Amino acid sequence: MKNIYLDYASTAPLCTAAREAAISSMDNFGNPSSMHNVGLLAEKEVSAAREMVASAINAKPSEIHFTAGGTEANNLAIFGGAKLPNGTGIITSPTEHSSVKYPFLTLGQRGFKMFHVEHFWHGGINPDSLRNVLKQTSPVSLISFHHVQNETGVVQDIAALAKIVRDICPTALVHVDAVQSFCKIAIDVRAMDVDFISLSAHKIGGLKGCGALYVRDKVHVAPLILGGGQERGVRSGTENVIGIAAFGAATKERYEKLQENYSCVQRLKELFLSEIDGIDGIKINGENTSPYILNISVADVRPEVLLNALSAEGVYISAGAACSSNKKQKKEEAAVLEAYGLSKERSQSAVRISFSPETTQEEIKEAAEAFIRNIAILRKLRKMR
Amino acid sequence: MKNIYLDYASTAPLCTAAREAAISSMDNFGNPSSMHNVGLLAEKEVSAAREMVASAINAKPSEIHFTAGGTEANNLAIFGGAKLPNGTGIITSPTEHSSVKYPFLTLGQRGFKMFHVEHFWHGGINPDSLRNVLKQTSPVSLISFHHVQNETGVVQDIAALAKIVRDICPTALVHVDAVQSFCKIAIDVRAMDVDFISLSAHKIGGLKGCGALYVRDKVHVAPLILGGGQERGVRSGTENVIGIAAFGAATKERYEKLQENYSCVQRLKELFLSEIDGIDGIKINGENTSPYILNISVADVRPEVLLNALSAEGVYISAGAACSSNKKQKKEEAAVLEAYGLSKERSQSAVRISFSPETTQEEIKEAAEAFIRNIAILRKLRKMR
Repeated sequence: MKNIYLDYASTAPLCTAAREAAISSMDNFGNPSSMHNVGLLAEKEVSAAREMVASAINAKPSEIHFTAGGTEANNLAIFGGAKLPNGTGIITSPTEHSSVKYPFLTLGQRGFKMFHVEHFWHGGINPDSLRNVLKQTSPVSLISFHHVQNETGVVQDIAALAKIVRDICPTALVHVDAVQSFCKIAIDVRAMDVDFISLSAHKIGGLKGCGALYVRDKVHVAPLILGGGQERGVRSGTENVIGIAAFGAATKERYEKLQENYSCVQRLKELFLSEIDGIDGIKINGENTSPYILNISVADVRPEVLLNALSAEGVYISAGAACSSNKKQKKEEAAVLEAYGLSKERSQSAVRISFSPETTQEEIKEAAEAFIRNIAILRKLRKMR
Repeated sequence: MKNIYLDYASTAPLCTAAREAAISSMDNFGNPSSMHNVGLLAEKEVSAAREMVASAINAKPSEIHFTAGGTEANNLAIFGGAKLPNGTGIITSPTEHSSVKYPFLTLGQRGFKMFHVEHFWHGGINPDSLRNVLKQTSPVSLISFHHVQNETGVVQDIAALAKIVRDICPTALVHVDAVQSFCKIAIDVRAMDVDFISLSAHKIGGLKGCGALYVRDKVHVAPLILGGGQERGVRSGTENVIGIAAFGAATKERYEKLQENYSCVQRLKELFLSEIDGIDGIKINGENTSPYILNISVADVRPEVLLNALSAEGVYISAGAACSSNKKQKKEEAAVLEAYGLSKERSQSAVRISFSPETTQEEIKEAAEAFIRNIAILRKLRKMR
């Protein structure tokens, strides 16, 4: 059986640097809050990782707050950032990850007024739609957009969107879910001019259960989890030292090779596309996408059936965001493409293939062959029924 | 330099079983929510750990919800369990960990009415005080008590306290912070008859950044962190597979030896007490304490100075809960003992020494010698000033 993993947008194998950092950190078991030497050694490890993560997005270490992952970071920014002093308006897109979508819906139930901006057919957020919503909604407390959409890979021009917000509503706070772009596409918090950025470790070869929220200097975020006052009071709980050490190591490894990896992954995506070129009933979704993610609609094939057929021979792709529970998956995937204005049929037949710099050209060719072959088989079976 | 760690109530070194589970799980990198085989393998690992944790407290696996630690579990139970349908009264003790205390204070600011029960001088919660508070406060939404107090080690009779609650206010939900008792003192959720129990992995040799909340079957808890709907919708976010696998392994190792370890640690505590017997100005705080924790007031010595002097020669103890930020430590430690009705002087001179079954008798003797010697030196220096 093959073993070709092409679901890196869901999660990635532990990278060598993160594995080594995690294992070496296992002996450094102190509680960073302890006042004795054992605690201080653990605190040093956390500080070193904080510096690495900060430098990868041009932030100060004091602006990085470790969390249990991207989901918690999104929840923290949204629940902690949407505050009445700034206003009751909250703005997002209809294509956000469920960890942004559900906090917004909850804030809506709590009395905030929620607005959605519109997408172009290619997946970009329509800046005129943002302008209109901002002008009609005053005052606005919080705006939240993804940097890279997790299912389609579409990249938003965050700096341009943030500028529109600053011009029309300077008191609003801007949050960016950068879980799919961190260490894959350059992020500069100063150039982007945003207040919150959510990051995740396991999408870049760190451990699951670790992430971070960038909070711009002097911006206040109300904590979600209260207690010992760790992470400058923003997120209490004994620090996940091993996860944080591995996050720092993965960040360093990936950040140093960001451009090189980008080009490499771009070649892999192009190779996959050229291999499947000419197949009937295939449509690529989204434009201006991250090379790390490819979203394709396959006519006359049920995505989960194709996924299972490929899984059975050791090729692993996704029929939607893996971080949604299975039943909701299809619906959420469809919701993203329908928000782009694509047809229901096209929306419901999408699969996601996601790459890593560790993926080889040979794997791409084999996966493409399996992809084409299984589509043909499934279409034939469908006709026979 | 010595290397005698006696701060296990703060955090513990990774145990062999947990280390092996964590390392072996590093290759099993899938996202448990993924529908393909790589995801299913990770899901299996999470399920196996869930069964181990459940069986250690006589719960069903479906009642265990993994979190990022004990602090998150406490926050989840309190914010998610205190609901208006049950009433606005909320009851706790003045000696809870900061991750219980601050959520209660926040609920108080949100309109809930908070009440404190009283302690006896020996640290036990006064059942008459609980009865009185319950009778005066109706309806009560949530009650939260520690099983083992984290600074003094005092063990509460949870089953007896829960029975009082059931008799007077059957709709109230009962939460227990069992972070310091899990796998150290037997816990049976059915016999205790409680609704929520918070657990932590790193106190028993698992990884930091992992814990669990037991939620009794059919009891509803509103999630704190929303998103993909993992952990039966109670706690979203990609599961910390390695942390959970290590938690399961540590639980198994510690649960199987619970009685044996209890006796072993009891002997260590008695040995330490007999070694320091006869020293002037020493007072043991709390009665009916866990053998894992010893709280001592040392007259005429500042606890943080003693801690630092001992740390300098490689003996690590605590001057309070390490999971509080340093500045607050002294205050919180004092607050617990003052709530027992002990004098301010005695309260502010307390140190915590906490044991593990891995601690040797030789280490105890050496630590006691260093303890006695440093107290004498510090008292002498004090007199000279």
